[in-house]
Amino acid sequence: MKSAIKPKLRLGMVGGGEGAFIGNVHRFAARLDDRYELVAGALSSQEERARHSADVLGIERSYKNYKEMALQESLRSDGIQVVSIVTPNHLHAEVALAFLEKGIHVICDKPLTATLDQAEELLEKSQLSNAKFMLTHNYSAYPMVREAREMVAQGKLGKIRSIQVEYAQDWLTDPLEQWGNKQANWRSDPSKAGIAGCMGDIGSHAYQLACFIIGSVANRVLADLSSWGEGRELDDEANILIHFKNGSKGHLWASQVAPGNENSLKIRVFGDRAGIEWEQETPNSLYFTELGNPRKTLTRGQAYLSSISRESARIPPGHPEGYLEAFGNLYREFADMFLGETSFNCLPTIEDGVHGMCFINACVESHQNGSVWRLV
Amino acid sequence: MKSAIKPKLRLGMVGGGEGAFIGNVHRFAARLDDRYELVAGALSSQEERARHSADVLGIERSYKNYKEMALQESLRSDGIQVVSIVTPNHLHAEVALAFLEKGIHVICDKPLTATLDQAEELLEKSQLSNAKFMLTHNYSAYPMVREAREMVAQGKLGKIRSIQVEYAQDWLTDPLEQWGNKQANWRSDPSKAGIAGCMGDIGSHAYQLACFIIGSVANRVLADLSSWGEGRELDDEANILIHFKNGSKGHLWASQVAPGNENSLKIRVFGDRAGIEWEQETPNSLYFTELGNPRKTLTRGQAYLSSISRESARIPPGHPEGYLEAFGNLYREFADMFLGETSFNCLPTIEDGVHGMCFINACVESHQNGSVWRLV
Amino acid sequence: MKSAIKPKLRLGMVGGGEGAFIGNVHRFAARLDDRYELVAGALSSQEERARHSADVLGIERSYKNYKEMALQESLRSDGIQVVSIVTPNHLHAEVALAFLEKGIHVICDKPLTATLDQAEELLEKSQLSNAKFMLTHNYSAYPMVREAREMVAQGKLGKIRSIQVEYAQDWLTDPLEQWGNKQANWRSDPSKAGIAGCMGDIGSHAYQLACFIIGSVANRVLADLSSWGEGRELDDEANILIHFKNGSKGHLWASQVAPGNENSLKIRVFGDRAGIEWEQETPNSLYFTELGNPRKTLTRGQAYLSSISRESARIPPGHPEGYLEAFGNLYREFADMFLGETSFNCLPTIEDGVHGMCFINACVESHQNGSVWRLV
Amino acid sequence: MKSAIKPKLRLGMVGGGEGAFIGNVHRFAARLDDRYELVAGALSSQEERARHSADVLGIERSYKNYKEMALQESLRSDGIQVVSIVTPNHLHAEVALAFLEKGIHVICDKPLTATLDQAEELLEKSQLSNAKFMLTHNYSAYPMVREAREMVAQGKLGKIRSIQVEYAQDWLTDPLEQWGNKQANWRSDPSKAGIAGCMGDIGSHAYQLACFIIGSVANRVLADLSSWGEGRELDDEANILIHFKNGSKGHLWASQVAPGNENSLKIRVFGDRAGIEWEQETPNSLYFTELGNPRKTLTRGQAYLSSISRESARIPPGHPEGYLEAFGNLYREFADMFLGETSFNCLPTIEDGVHGMCFINACVESHQNGSVWRLV
Repeated sequence: MKSAIKPKLRLGMVGGGEGAFIGNVHRFAARLDDRYELVAGALSSQEERARHSADVLGIERSYKNYKEMALQESLRSDGIQVVSIVTPNHLHAEVALAFLEKGIHVICDKPLTATLDQAEELLEKSQLSNAKFMLTHNYSAYPMVREAREMVAQGKLGKIRSIQVEYAQDWLTDPLEQWGNKQANWRSDPSKAGIAGCMGDIGSHAYQLACFIIGSVANRVLADLSSWGEGRELDDEANILIHFKNGSKGHLWASQVAPGNENSLKIRVFGDRAGIEWEQETPNSLYFTELGNPRKTLTRGQAYLSSISRESARIPPGHPEGYLEAFGNLYREFADMFLGETSFNCLPTIEDGVHGMCFINACVESHQNGSVWRLV
Repeated sequence: MKSAIKPKLRLGMVGGGEGAFIGNVHRFAARLDDRYELVAGALSSQEERARHSADVLGIERSYKNYKEMALQESLRSDGIQVVSIVTPNHLHAEVALAFLEKGIHVICDKPLTATLDQAEELLEKSQLSNAKFMLTHNYSAYPMVREAREMVAQGKLGKIRSIQVEYAQDWLTDPLEQWGNKQANWRSDPSKAGIAGCMGDIGSHAYQLACFIIGSVANRVLADLSSWGEGRELDDEANILIHFKNGSKGHLWASQVAPGNENSLKIRVFGDRAGIEWEQETPNSLYFTELGNPRKTLTRGQAYLSSISRESARIPPGHPEGYLEAFGNLYREFADMFLGETSFNCLPTIEDGVHGMCFINACVESHQNGSVWRLV
Repeated sequence: MKSAIKPKLRLGMVGGGEGAFIGNVHRFAARLDDRYELVAGALSSQEERARHSADVLGIERSYKNYKEMALQESLRSDGIQVVSIVTPNHLHAEVALAFLEKGIHVICDKPLTATLDQAEELLEKSQLSNAKFMLTHNYSAYPMVREAREMVAQGKLGKIRSIQVEYAQDWLTDPLEQWGNKQANWRSDPSKAGIAGCMGDIGSHAYQLACFIIGSVANRVLADLSSWGEGRELDDEANILIHFKNGSKGHLWASQVAPGNENSLKIRVFGDRAGIEWEQETPNSLYFTELGNPRKTLTRGQAYLSSISRESARIPPGHPEGYLEAFGNLYREFADMFLGETSFNCLPTIEDGVHGMCFINACVESHQNGSVWRLV
Repeated sequence: MKSAIKPKLRLGMVGGGEGAFIGNVHRFAARLDDRYELVAGALSSQEERARHSADVLGIERSYKNYKEMALQESLRSDGIQVVSIVTPNHLHAEVALAFLEKGIHVICDKPLTATLDQAEELLEKSQLSNAKFMLTHNYSAYPMVREAREMVAQGKLGKIRSIQVEYAQDWLTDPLEQWGNKQANWRSDPSKAGIAGCMGDIGSHAYQLACFIIGSVANRVLADLSSWGEGRELDDEANILIHFKNGSKGHLWASQVAPGNENSLKIRVFGDRAGIEWEQETPNSLYFTELGNPRKTLTRGQAYLSSISRESARIPPGHPEGYLEAFGNLYREFADMFLGETSFNCLPTIEDGVHGMCFINACVESHQNGSVWRLV
């Protein structure tokens, strides 16, 4: 355990007013390790609502919009050092740029943007800033996911051949967006979510998880998308075939219409010597089977794990950590990065985000052309 | 419980000499409910070996080949009434026809044949015979699989949207066929197994299971096949996209190179009201979740199940039944059929077998043409 | 695989008429490996009913009672060589003796008798016969239970310290015996079941399982019994503290009134180096954890297992075997014993049965004296 | 969601310097919902070490001992309102009293004290103070544990008959306390831990969990304790028979020497209509089976749960919460209590703590007298 005093970073937030699921999550994550102080916000596009949310949350400074916030904060000597962006997807790019231009570091929810064009523009312009950028692909921050990545990197699975990754939910089985559900609403509106529904919302997580663990990305994809919900424009289910650059092949299934699935993100990776399996809903275990040997259940926090995995845990084995702790890892490590205190070099970047958008784009194009292979 | 005396059927077997996995399984299945008496065999293409196997197994009459057996048995007043065919795939058709022509009923291992041509010829010629034919798609004989089929038929899942079915093994991870393994040998030899390896051996089971449960078949398929084993000609892994005739879509993954998987056949079916899940390695449970409700674990033999499922069980809940019991159900019901004693009308037929070959063919063609949609 | 022809043994059965659960199970078990031919029976104490059951089951010779059967069969040159006893407990002793006296081998359901006196008398008189006796403690015949025993014997767990064994069912939650349920009826009638209800019916299995695996028996016990069912005389639940002769300590829980439990027999054994866990409802796996290492899931049939475990399996890993297959192991090995073909020397004996009765007796006495320690 | 601004409480801490497991946990718990500000501490009995820990943790005011801290803080207008006590057990009483006397609310780790005498003295003297006291029996703060309690209270299980509760770990399998392990050291030292080892450390949690869920406490107990670790004075394993005041009976197993168990707290409760099961290592699920019906898996956060359970969750179903979130519930609700904002009235009290000490005492006495029944 390091014993130097770790200063808190001053944090702002755009989006994420009261009742917003993901805004709450980011606040928990920021607070968990006592490395941030949330002092400013533009929590809603409606000024009054924004102010009310800030009040309730005890946030000192509330702005009427993100532009004002970026400007004013950059002028203060005690202005925010980092901003978290938790708006609908179509706003990510412009908000991020406003802060990056002022030298304020950005933590941005995924997917990076609503469209690939926005993503590429963001990447280009971001290069003019010295500020850092982190995309919250939180699932790759689970300790046992990191163990999986490490095991693949160390060759414990042999040559990687095959990947099965899936992310299933059931909350959009019924057409909630037509019944006034706010969360469902923007996610199924192309003007806010972008060209993809389920693929942007959760398929992008599943893809990133696979890439993170195997240390490679897609060369080409072939997609079969569906829109089951009555009157739904965007996809709510997808089956994607993937050929990775490292020579492995795989399949990704994402669905928001699969009754019985809450937030069921699972991955299996098979090499020519061993296979691994991990499930987000029981994240403290990782299953590892070497060919011809009994399956081993590796558990979070144990001494036999790699250091990256052990350092991502806070409490001993058998004391379950969950979603917030994994999310918190990203916030903690982003803070550590500024102190030069982390050797862990795999926080999701803006480039990862652009690649994610390329992946989504390729999937949509593949589907629209009758399920043909598309380069990513 | 019915109390009439059930006469035993006289049974013969072609293939399945000592040490053959599937021959043994058929014998266990035939014996389990005391409905067959194995009295004749042509257990090997090598006469001496055939005779030795017959001796060891206590089979009365051993023939030098199946033709001789079909002829001689048909001439006896106490000749066999049923024959089980457990040879490599390429021999199924000719053996089956030899017995069907003599009016002897046939139980045939899957897949139906090595090629679609053989299958179609078999179907055509079989129509000249009055004898019955059953294909041993044993996995659809598990009580909880039948419960699943019944639940779908009763509309408990609502309209079926999505299917994920998979069948994973790891025993061909290494190129065993080059190391002298007999089981691996014929399965990876196109002249014996046919145009497909993994797809014929286990993919066909997974596909049949899905069709059996949802009560529909594929309209079109798109396949991505792989041959990972060094020097392996046929596929040892497959990802198949499927559009079913009932409007649902799905994905089938079959692999024999997935370390950590023994005989992992799993299926998930999702409708617009509920989802189900079943796994072959723990076959006594069926998971059922209605949207917005807790997951229920239905268990074999319970009074709340449908009659078809309950009648497929032999012992009470909590006393696990397995693979042999499911296989035995097929044999028992085939015998019951002759007594007119079963109302269960879904034993796999020769037509199912032909359809299975069409499916395999369409997958191989799809793959060879760069993963394009093919009608089945 | 041995290739000598294995002759079938001629088998008779006492008790187990139509509809009797355990009679059916014994018949399946006898048939499974084709080593027995069921040719004679006294299946019911009511002659007409006995004959009808024999007819339905296709059993050649039906006797009006077991005495007649023992006499007549012993006079025939083709008389039965083995008899299976599946009557209520209080008849086991007299029936067994009738056959042992005629030199006919006995397979007897557990518990050995209804009372310890009967058990001791049976033991004493049995010593005058050369015939063999096997008690069907079927749960110790599961392949992975045998693996567990082997692991303990080989010291893989270190010195054994602690045992938790339990056997829970729920079928007697309501007072079925008062509602006309035949199975419940005799089991809750002291004149037929003996001094114990749940302890005799299933507690005895749990105790035998523990002893079988750890290779030791109880030195002393302390019991807390309950009779929850309205108007029920015998125990339907028990918590037993046990001190074993090898210095280990443990707890046994048996219940027939635990809603949600079908036939949930589980055991955990802990030594100073490792622990194991096994559950009857998923019997193909055995969990093994060495201190400080990941939990391993050992699975039936794998090459890494001991020979005793591998030889107790019939089909490959991943093809689940269940209750009937384990039961069948006892029958197969009893037959092998006569051929001198088994090196496996742990079929449950009459002495094991007497010890089981001592255990039950000590538990009941402990309870009746206010839960005090009693020597077994 | 309530929208009034919730003020933060000023918090102090005694014990829990750097590297202390439970101190860290309390800090996470306090921070999680942003309801506390940790401003003062006496983190170690060694002044220098205390100051260093305070510095590292960014705590403003460090005291050389708890007495000084209680005095000084009570004199400040901005002094702490609440103190967390995370010292070894033998210090709990005196520290708690020092703060209670000054009107400062106390959050105290369990067990309440090292001896029953201390506990009773603490209870008596505490009644002179108006300050509140909460004992951190954190396991009863898991949402699904609260659901279980609610279900029992609503009669969904019928009349409670039987309880099986267990808490197994393996970290003391080897005699770590003799190898310099600090955590092991004080826990196995009677002068610091009290008269019980494993029973005080984890058995007390298991007992509290059972009482919490069934809404009753032990009438009498009978204990069989063991000290397996070489040279270990206090118990490291216990089997306890319990008769509860509501007429139910049960068994409690606690062990710190069970290889393969990390922090395996499990409970099963059976009534005459249904049974439930919960495991701490997968805390987001609760299993519920009504007699004759399929097992249901209830999951945290779902709309079908009771309000107390839903309000104890922070994020949606499928996003796992863990140990820290449950611990945080206690802190959050303690804060809410001062605002009069919680209707939840079951935070563990000082009386609960005294009762827990009575239970431990009765167990130790029972064991020392040869495992006899003792009133609690």
